[in-house]
Amino acid sequence: MNIPERILMGPGPTTVPQRVLRAMASPTLGHLDPRFIEIMDDTCAKLREVYQTDNSLTFPISATGVGGMECVVTNLMEPGDEAIVCVNGVFGKRMVEVMKRNGVTVHVLDVEWGKTFTEEQIGEVVQRYPKAKALAIVHGEISTGAHQPLEGIAKLLNEEGMLLIVDATGSLAGHPLKVDEWHIDAVYSATQECLSCPPGLSPISFSEAALEVMERRKTSVRSWYFDVSLLKDYYTGSGGRHHHHTAPVNMVYALNEALALVLEEGLEARFERHEKLHRRLRAGLEELGLSYIPDRSLHSLNCVRIPDGVEDEAVRARMLETYGIEIGGGLGPFQGEAWRIGLMGHSATQANVDLVLAALCDCLE
Amino acid sequence: MNIPERILMGPGPTTVPQRVLRAMASPTLGHLDPRFIEIMDDTCAKLREVYQTDNSLTFPISATGVGGMECVVTNLMEPGDEAIVCVNGVFGKRMVEVMKRNGVTVHVLDVEWGKTFTEEQIGEVVQRYPKAKALAIVHGEISTGAHQPLEGIAKLLNEEGMLLIVDATGSLAGHPLKVDEWHIDAVYSATQECLSCPPGLSPISFSEAALEVMERRKTSVRSWYFDVSLLKDYYTGSGGRHHHHTAPVNMVYALNEALALVLEEGLEARFERHEKLHRRLRAGLEELGLSYIPDRSLHSLNCVRIPDGVEDEAVRARMLETYGIEIGGGLGPFQGEAWRIGLMGHSATQANVDLVLAALCDCLE
Repeated sequence: MNIPERILMGPGPTTVPQRVLRAMASPTLGHLDPRFIEIMDDTCAKLREVYQTDNSLTFPISATGVGGMECVVTNLMEPGDEAIVCVNGVFGKRMVEVMKRNGVTVHVLDVEWGKTFTEEQIGEVVQRYPKAKALAIVHGEISTGAHQPLEGIAKLLNEEGMLLIVDATGSLAGHPLKVDEWHIDAVYSATQECLSCPPGLSPISFSEAALEVMERRKTSVRSWYFDVSLLKDYYTGSGGRHHHHTAPVNMVYALNEALALVLEEGLEARFERHEKLHRRLRAGLEELGLSYIPDRSLHSLNCVRIPDGVEDEAVRARMLETYGIEIGGGLGPFQGEAWRIGLMGHSATQANVDLVLAALCDCLE
Repeated sequence: MNIPERILMGPGPTTVPQRVLRAMASPTLGHLDPRFIEIMDDTCAKLREVYQTDNSLTFPISATGVGGMECVVTNLMEPGDEAIVCVNGVFGKRMVEVMKRNGVTVHVLDVEWGKTFTEEQIGEVVQRYPKAKALAIVHGEISTGAHQPLEGIAKLLNEEGMLLIVDATGSLAGHPLKVDEWHIDAVYSATQECLSCPPGLSPISFSEAALEVMERRKTSVRSWYFDVSLLKDYYTGSGGRHHHHTAPVNMVYALNEALALVLEEGLEARFERHEKLHRRLRAGLEELGLSYIPDRSLHSLNCVRIPDGVEDEAVRARMLETYGIEIGGGLGPFQGEAWRIGLMGHSATQANVDLVLAALCDCLE
């Protein structure tokens, strides 16, 4: 394929370990083959460990991260429902769009992009819109690098069953994310971030409460492809292993192996590694005069302001051509204004931190 | 991964060539990396050759085959629109369901499952529902193995712009499919059938007329993930290469290599190979007393009735355990009644034909 050597330090994909690439290249099995069903079940079990949940409905959606967002919204919400969406970056904004396309009345809680939400702000908006069926919030906003604390949020929601929806694209396997302990009802992520698996799947998990909401739907899910009532038999084996669509077999091999690597390292050790290397990178970036955009930065993604007079694209092109290092440009209002330097999964090494600092130092001259 | 050796002769996935597996295991690049953009452009160019089209909007949807169906419907149709759907198997039936979920009024033309549609039948239904915006038909119905001729259909449609939608899941790269010559407006397929690539992508193509219909939409597309107006910039480069979602990079490598193999063999040679081996298999199956279900069989999929007194699952389990051969069971009304023996792409070899016949002969005893 003539693939140039790259060190992927953008907002994803991240550098994929050889073990994952090799697993992915294993011979394709049929999606109903008993051995593949075992691999799928094992993948879902590993996903539960990484999501820290017992949710039976935990599986990889056959689409990329945004597919997970769409799956959650289209299954939990019905036209005419109300929802609160917390917007502090591109992914919150996208959630608003996806909700609206599903006929949902959206109440937006927005703060300046890069800021995170306080419990006070969330408590207040919940009081204002008590009929909202769900509150959606982004745990790791990869457009700004903001890291939203989630521990205290569930207790702020309306006790009559307001659902907590979490976008964990930039955080899963890089930051603590305790789905059961934090009472999250629906969560989705992507394989190409801190899991260091190629892009193509969206790991997802639904609580029992979310399942009940889906079972009580009055209208059919608008999307056949993402309809959980049709998908769940295949993934949980509840009603037999019926064919819905052909699972992306080799991508599931890759995810299984990527999850094995996460669990071999151990979640706590992995989170500590991300934190330690983030500190090292942050010290170096600030020494270079680069300031962080978010008030609380993800360890896995470092979003810094491009200094005045520095040309975004020229620097990134030079980083890529001279060093083979990919860093990300800004998204939305930060286009041309920010760089996003990922420290995710397999890409988060001390060697990469020191190299990216050396390279930036050179390219900023 | 401990993958057992299998010969995949079901309705897909098919056995994937080593070259494709190796390409897929190439290091992951960023989806905006200039080299990856080249690979994506090259993949789309190769797809155009295989689809025999000049359609600029020809690309792989980041979802499996049904995702392609959903993408076509949700982009071309709006709530309140009418459509004609030809149903002679599971995939036509699914199209009805996907249309309905998109708010479309569906006029079903159905024939007995396994039969194909005559030009007379189609001409008649078009006369009856001249306001239908589209007519959808399945070229290779992999639930029944029926091969629908398409050459004469476009001329039967309402000249005021009725669109021709084609499901080419079981036929692309196994049977002639001339998108431009046959005036097809929207076509989708899957990677795991005659392309012999792992499952995970849905190659799709839209005509200029289809593009115009999308541009004239009055409502926004219900699915953000499948919204072509947002996707097209990335795939055609028309408005820059904006980020919409992260393309499944390694799956695109695999598809590129699978398409290269198709084009190296040559389309005509490939179609002849499928035809020749289908004849050989058919002669052998009929000698074993197995009768074909469809009136016109696909070369790529052979759907035969299970003889009375033969136990479906026991035979398939024995085929799998003793010979490592996967054949498919029946779908829908043919569950337990039919087997589906694939002869697709890399799986379509004389050795496999003779082996599956020997194995069936043994397992039927």
